[in-house]
Amino acid sequence: MTVGILGGTGPLGGGLALRLAAAGDSVVIGSRDAQRAKAVTAELLEPWSARGLDVRGATNPEAAACDVVVMATPWDAAVPTVGALRDEIGDKVVVSVANALVKQGRELQALVPARGSIAAAVQAALPDAKVAAACQHLPASSLAALDDTLEADVLVCSDHADAAEAAAALVGRIEGLRPVHAGSLASAAAIEAFTAVLITVNIRYKAHTTLRLGGLPAPGAAGRG
Amino acid sequence: MTVGILGGTGPLGGGLALRLAAAGDSVVIGSRDAQRAKAVTAELLEPWSARGLDVRGATNPEAAACDVVVMATPWDAAVPTVGALRDEIGDKVVVSVANALVKQGRELQALVPARGSIAAAVQAALPDAKVAAACQHLPASSLAALDDTLEADVLVCSDHADAAEAAAALVGRIEGLRPVHAGSLASAAAIEAFTAVLITVNIRYKAHTTLRLGGLPAPGAAGRG
Repeated sequence: MTVGILGGTGPLGGGLALRLAAAGDSVVIGSRDAQRAKAVTAELLEPWSARGLDVRGATNPEAAACDVVVMATPWDAAVPTVGALRDEIGDKVVVSVANALVKQGRELQALVPARGSIAAAVQAALPDAKVAAACQHLPASSLAALDDTLEADVLVCSDHADAAEAAAALVGRIEGLRPVHAGSLASAAAIEAFTAVLITVNIRYKAHTTLRLGGLPAPGAAGRG
Repeated sequence: MTVGILGGTGPLGGGLALRLAAAGDSVVIGSRDAQRAKAVTAELLEPWSARGLDVRGATNPEAAACDVVVMATPWDAAVPTVGALRDEIGDKVVVSVANALVKQGRELQALVPARGSIAAAVQAALPDAKVAAACQHLPASSLAALDDTLEADVLVCSDHADAAEAAAALVGRIEGLRPVHAGSLASAAAIEAFTAVLITVNIRYKAHTTLRLGGLPAPGAAGRG
């Protein structure tokens, strides 16, 4: 499967690119500036050259031409970026991983974007696409450290059941990640905002926390209803 | 220590009352209606009569006279309830555990209260008190099942370091709960809203999920800065 990451030069996009490539996907890291995408990609791949990962740097339109599109730009670039790619994206699944956060002293605080979440704003800008929110809570540095074991639950929400399934499948291909269905895209507002809390905890404890949910049944047992 | 729970007749308040009493605290379950508080308390204690738990039903003003006050009313009763108890509460620590949630079909959605969170609204209504938010994510039914092992991380935030410490100490007395400091009361907005996501997951998976954070250092190692 080909996965294109819009704004893939940021830490979360880069980390996801490496993990998805390690899972066997062909990944395109998109950027407004293809030269920058190529440079960042070379830097990302450098420690893992022996693995033969299929990641390349390109433009955002090239990333948008992939089978699945991940929206990983800074939050304030999300709507302009996808708005300009409406034709390339068409009716595909778009996985929005962005958060609107601002640093205030030693903590992060969540902004309330128009429409409540970046994912909802992206869905509104792409009425033909099927947007799912996912991966907001993953620590980027842990993703990029391919030798580190990840163990995290990834909340997935969407107004389109097939987009939720596709996003869950994408997440589930990364070893150690368990997708958890968390309802409609209305949930994205609280999921995105909660990232600020996790990063605030990270700053206070000098940690890279991952979200885990206790008490869930075994994978595949339920939650698709 | 005496702990008073305003609106303690609800599921979360009742569950916390049982767990705190099991930890050795003397708990007063407050309600607008003392008769109702007594009836609910009798029902709560009935399965655990052999344990000699110190829990009694009373009025909200009696609950507010305790050493620590827990704010557990329905969200729309929070500000009127504490506003009427300003003298009784004085400059004490108030632990706000409430969430503003609404059911929409098969999921819960978070409302945005004035001031962003119930905890912030309670703090504004009680300028002399020191409000901490905590316990929002605990599944009430698991709390009330005293024989069940709890294992959950409890996010605590406050604008007052001593209130954060007091709330963390309260939480930490309950076996299986680990308090995690999550910054100022600004974090309460995202913490409260995230409860909607966890309950939506619970509905979909027929589960009682608990929040766990992976990657934190051992308790007491950090996070108080």
